[in-house]
Amino acid sequence: MLTYDISQANEPIYEYIARRVKGDIEAGRLRSGERLPSKRSFAKNNGVSTITVQNAYDQLIDEGYVVALPRRGYFVASIGNIGNMGAHDNHHVALRAVDDAKATHGVTDAFDANEKNKNESYTFDFTSNETTTELFPFSVWAHILRDNLSHRRQALFTVPPAGGVMILREAVAEHLASFRGLRVRPENIVIGAGTEYLYSLIVQLMGRDKCYCVESPGYGKLMKIYEHLGARCAYAALDDFGMRIDMLECSGADIAHVSPNHHFPTGITMPISRRYELLAWAGKARGRYIIEDDYDSEFRLRGRPVPTLMGVDAIGSVVYMNTFTKSLAPTIRVSYMALPGELAQRFRDELSFYACPVPNLVQYTLADFITNGYFERHINRMRRRYARTRDELLTGIRSVFADGEYKVMENGSGLHLVLRLETDVPDDVIRARLEKGGVKIRSIGEFYFGIQPNDTHEFIISYAGLSGDKNGGDTPQENKMGLMDALTKLRRAMMI
Amino acid sequence: MLTYDISQANEPIYEYIARRVKGDIEAGRLRSGERLPSKRSFAKNNGVSTITVQNAYDQLIDEGYVVALPRRGYFVASIGNIGNMGAHDNHHVALRAVDDAKATHGVTDAFDANEKNKNESYTFDFTSNETTTELFPFSVWAHILRDNLSHRRQALFTVPPAGGVMILREAVAEHLASFRGLRVRPENIVIGAGTEYLYSLIVQLMGRDKCYCVESPGYGKLMKIYEHLGARCAYAALDDFGMRIDMLECSGADIAHVSPNHHFPTGITMPISRRYELLAWAGKARGRYIIEDDYDSEFRLRGRPVPTLMGVDAIGSVVYMNTFTKSLAPTIRVSYMALPGELAQRFRDELSFYACPVPNLVQYTLADFITNGYFERHINRMRRRYARTRDELLTGIRSVFADGEYKVMENGSGLHLVLRLETDVPDDVIRARLEKGGVKIRSIGEFYFGIQPNDTHEFIISYAGLSGDKNGGDTPQENKMGLMDALTKLRRAMMI
Repeated sequence: MLTYDISQANEPIYEYIARRVKGDIEAGRLRSGERLPSKRSFAKNNGVSTITVQNAYDQLIDEGYVVALPRRGYFVASIGNIGNMGAHDNHHVALRAVDDAKATHGVTDAFDANEKNKNESYTFDFTSNETTTELFPFSVWAHILRDNLSHRRQALFTVPPAGGVMILREAVAEHLASFRGLRVRPENIVIGAGTEYLYSLIVQLMGRDKCYCVESPGYGKLMKIYEHLGARCAYAALDDFGMRIDMLECSGADIAHVSPNHHFPTGITMPISRRYELLAWAGKARGRYIIEDDYDSEFRLRGRPVPTLMGVDAIGSVVYMNTFTKSLAPTIRVSYMALPGELAQRFRDELSFYACPVPNLVQYTLADFITNGYFERHINRMRRRYARTRDELLTGIRSVFADGEYKVMENGSGLHLVLRLETDVPDDVIRARLEKGGVKIRSIGEFYFGIQPNDTHEFIISYAGLSGDKNGGDTPQENKMGLMDALTKLRRAMMI
Repeated sequence: MLTYDISQANEPIYEYIARRVKGDIEAGRLRSGERLPSKRSFAKNNGVSTITVQNAYDQLIDEGYVVALPRRGYFVASIGNIGNMGAHDNHHVALRAVDDAKATHGVTDAFDANEKNKNESYTFDFTSNETTTELFPFSVWAHILRDNLSHRRQALFTVPPAGGVMILREAVAEHLASFRGLRVRPENIVIGAGTEYLYSLIVQLMGRDKCYCVESPGYGKLMKIYEHLGARCAYAALDDFGMRIDMLECSGADIAHVSPNHHFPTGITMPISRRYELLAWAGKARGRYIIEDDYDSEFRLRGRPVPTLMGVDAIGSVVYMNTFTKSLAPTIRVSYMALPGELAQRFRDELSFYACPVPNLVQYTLADFITNGYFERHINRMRRRYARTRDELLTGIRSVFADGEYKVMENGSGLHLVLRLETDVPDDVIRARLEKGGVKIRSIGEFYFGIQPNDTHEFIISYAGLSGDKNGGDTPQENKMGLMDALTKLRRAMMI
């Protein structure tokens, strides 16, 4: 068991641990393929927290000294390859390591399944929606940042209204007008630090005593957030056109939270007739609202964009929400909502004491980025990239699966498609088999609230992740090989 | 009445309005000293929102075309001075303008008192805590930003744990250790987008059914926020040592929210004996916690810093909170809290599904800023500046007021002092008289919850605002003259 004298650390503890382990690997005291202690036992043994160990291990993985395998544990990598080792090599080392480990320790249960599995533990991840860094216009962004730091000093230090910096709200309004045909007053737009923050404002605006109805299947975090905010929650099933109005009616909800333009995970686009039914529902009683979550509308790959619910709403019952998470970076933490007149007024009357949580520098930079046309260019570039990824993916699927074994469900919009498999193997068996092979996948069944259909045989394949830097390998060629490898594993997993 | 054809706007509406008004001023259609319509009537007349008009007027003020006076309205500035006009000139123009306006319109009630009075409406603001931009190390910040955009691309796109980017949490832990003698594990630190965001996490962690007790007098927004978050609230009076434990006990509260190291607005530092009484209160029942708000501890100007409550807490009942609002910029929107072990574990178990709301780029930049010693240097520079401002302020007070007319109450820490005046003039008469003279001031009486003592004759004088860019004038000399002018007005206002 590895034990280090933590009191000797002159640096952050995780760095100290990483340095010591590295030293032991380089000195040959830890040999290639050897299994490291689980985070929990390492932590206990050295009197540090498991998160510190996690950080140390992550750093060792980043530097190529250690390889992680899901449900297996951490293994010393092949030292000759350190520094210039591709993910594939890593994977092979890891597989060898696992064999060694199995031989000496038996199948281990050391990997703490309760802790968040980091993507690094997988060699291929069909669920990842981390966008690629490659396309992000870093130098433009850096230029605008510098420009703002030079020329907008006073503005950067001036506390903006609760809804955000006005020129960003105007830029967003312009963007909505040109991309979504949606006319919104800039002063009705509220800038937030991610949609989660906006949900918290929504609950304060509409009332914690109200009942919020979400889609089932749907984005699981949503209900969790509403519940944590102290609001009542319900869910309504979908049919082929989106949220069922009868179920919504039965739920007794006051607020319907929907993603009509590209539902996650099914990919359904709500047709106009259902949109009017939904608006009619909202019109039936005072205090009913619809939250239109338009999280990936920028990425519609073909066809005419569907008009927004808010765009056809004449009674001021729709709140439109969107985020820059998908279109710029998952860690930029800027989202926005457009409020109908009455709610916008309530926001100004009741919530304007809040400080806008997004740093001014980020708001001004993003405003300039949009206003000067960079955002549009960036979206177009990403769209082309995703269209290409989608084509490669479809080609890959067609070459790996036989006719009749699968059906692709997609409507050309958004960042993922759904693959329905003709199989009798239960979804979680498929998932577990893939996981053993280092491939992460999720089935639609996992996204239901309440009664969960066990086996939909419908699996989510995200494009964004396929374009990612870390999926499959370090080069496009490796990525493609990684994809083919993962699809082959998926097909093998669906066989009895 | 000004009417423009808004449909002709090719730019954001507020810019269009500003441009048209500017045109009318330059063409002589609007004359120097002429009163502009109130925002509300302008908005109604042109079919736009008052916020749009506000933005247009703000821009015109920024560019020197228009002058605003509290409770008076907006006036066309003296056009000859536009572009190189100091605040003093502006003020004189405005005073002339007011006289003109009074002559033609009588005393106007056009200024909408319901809307947030911007600082620009005052020529001197004793309450302002907008820190000066002058001291902010823009070029260092720009350099670190660029460096991160070049070398940390992958990390910038990697979603961090809910508590924030680990190296920032480690940097904050180091800072707390060296500046506050407080040893906290980095993994127990949670990074938030401003303290308001952290309060929302607190309520989710400790429970909405719990009762939160704040200090009276105290920071007014605090109770408002707790109430908006759906939590029960109470308040407890202070004596000379801070929150009264008997009142806290009577309030039935589970959580005490205090600022023991420099109470706002009284300036009280809680002595160690009261700290132990408070900790004893917390130890008496399960689920009792203390929130230690240490918002301006970096600015202690002299004397030994008082140890934190968290530092002497042996039962894990204190949450320590601080922010970079005061020490860096009000719009940087980064704050943090250090949780005791049990709460930190609860945060990881129950709230780790949240995304950290601060952009990664900001987190990494701030981490580097702290780790490389820039933060410490910046604080020292600001401290020296504030110490100088404080000395000037005290000299000014001594030269304007006679002995026996006033008492300065301060303990050398923080960014403001309290000036107690020997007078029988009610506080709000003093306040109104000063406001007429373009000077903004607040008395401690305004910060009480519940029964409000009418006349404390204790007024808050903030240093941060005095060092500000906009207070008094454009140069240090003008600032100083502005301060002397404002103090003289204050003395005049306290005379029967």
